[in-house]
Amino acid sequence: MVEFYRVRVRTKGNTDVIDITQHVADAVEKSNKKDGIAVVFVPGSTAAITTIEYEPNLVKDIKNIMEKLVPSNIEYLHHKTWGDDNGSSHIRASIVKPSLTVPFQNKELLLGTWQQIVLMDFDTREREREIIIQIIGE
Amino acid sequence: MVEFYRVRVRTKGNTDVIDITQHVADAVEKSNKKDGIAVVFVPGSTAAITTIEYEPNLVKDIKNIMEKLVPSNIEYLHHKTWGDDNGSSHIRASIVKPSLTVPFQNKELLLGTWQQIVLMDFDTREREREIIIQIIGE
Amino acid sequence: MVEFYRVRVRTKGNTDVIDITQHVADAVEKSNKKDGIAVVFVPGSTAAITTIEYEPNLVKDIKNIMEKLVPSNIEYLHHKTWGDDNGSSHIRASIVKPSLTVPFQNKELLLGTWQQIVLMDFDTREREREIIIQIIGE
Repeated sequence: MVEFYRVRVRTKGNTDVIDITQHVADAVEKSNKKDGIAVVFVPGSTAAITTIEYEPNLVKDIKNIMEKLVPSNIEYLHHKTWGDDNGSSHIRASIVKPSLTVPFQNKELLLGTWQQIVLMDFDTREREREIIIQIIGE
Repeated sequence: MVEFYRVRVRTKGNTDVIDITQHVADAVEKSNKKDGIAVVFVPGSTAAITTIEYEPNLVKDIKNIMEKLVPSNIEYLHHKTWGDDNGSSHIRASIVKPSLTVPFQNKELLLGTWQQIVLMDFDTREREREIIIQIIGE
Repeated sequence: MVEFYRVRVRTKGNTDVIDITQHVADAVEKSNKKDGIAVVFVPGSTAAITTIEYEPNLVKDIKNIMEKLVPSNIEYLHHKTWGDDNGSSHIRASIVKPSLTVPFQNKELLLGTWQQIVLMDFDTREREREIIIQIIGE
C-alpha cells in the first residue's frame, strides 16, 4: 500500500525554486498504484514544497516577495546560536512548510495545467537536497 | 480504499473565501469509509485551501492582510510573461498552498467548532473552480 | 489501516511554539504500522502545525516576524464580531495551516536532523490544545 521514492536535487539556495513535477509523476508511474496520494516531503528546516506556475519571471517575483516579507539581511537571534546567517531561511521554510499532498487518479497527478510541484530552497548556500516521494493508494 | 469526489464552486476572485466544509463532510458521508483522511485539493496556481473561522469580518481582514503582504497593485515580472495582472495571486497561492489534509473518525471531520475548510481564490477575476475531495481510509 | 492518537498540550498562546516531535514519534512507535504517514492536525482556528529547527532564539525570531507580518496590536474587523482581540491569531493560523503530513519508514519519521514538528499557538491567551495524530499505513 505504501511505496517510497527518493530523488536528489542540486540547488543554489537563496529561494532557488526547482520544478520537481516530473520526479513525482515518474514515481506515480513506476508505482503499482492507480489511485491515491503522492506525499512530497523535504527533510530539513530551510526548504519547502509547494506548487507554482513555473516560469522564470514568477520565480523571480517570489524571491523578491520573500525578501520583502522575511528579509535575509537583518539580524536574527538564531544567528547567535550557531554563528549562522540563515535565520530568514528557517522562517520562510516554517511558513511555506516541507510537505505537500497531491492526489492522483488513473496514474495522473490532478494538477492544473499551469501548476507545477516545486522545491523552494531558502538556505543561504548551495545544497544537495533529498526529496521523499511517498505513494499511498491502490 | 481511495474514493474521489469533485465539486464545482463559483468565486469572485480577489481573495474570495468560500466555505466548502459541507462539501467535504458530504463526501465523507457518501463514502464507504468510517475512518481516514479527506485530502482537499484545488487544481490551479492562483487558489488555495486552508481553514478559518468563517465569518464575514474575518474574511475581510484576511483580504486586507493579503493585500498588505503581497500587494496586487505593484508590478510583477510575471505580468510581462503573459500580459497578465495576477502576479500577486500566484504568490499568495504558493504561500497558502492548494492542498489540505483533514482527518475524520466515525464519519466526523475532526475540525474545531469554529473552524471551517475554505477555498481562497486569489485570482483577479471571477472563476469556476473544481475542487478534488479524495477520501482515503477504511 | 488507520489509527488515532490524541495528545493534550498546554500553551501560553502569543505564538507559543511547542515541540511535539516526540509525541508523533511515540504514536508511530505504538502503532502497528511500519511504513506510512503521520497526519498531525490541530482542531481550532488560531493554531497551526509546521516544522522548525527548535531552538529558543529561532522561536523568538519567528514570534518577531509574525508580529511584523500580521501585527497583533492593530484593529481587525473580527474584533467587532465577538469583542475578541485575536484577529491576528486567526490570520496567522490560516496562513500556516493546521495540518502537516510526515512520512515514516521502518517506524522512523523521515525528518531532517535539525527539523522538529511543532504546534504554533497564535491565540492571545493560554490554551490547552488537543492534537490529533493519525497514523495511516501498513
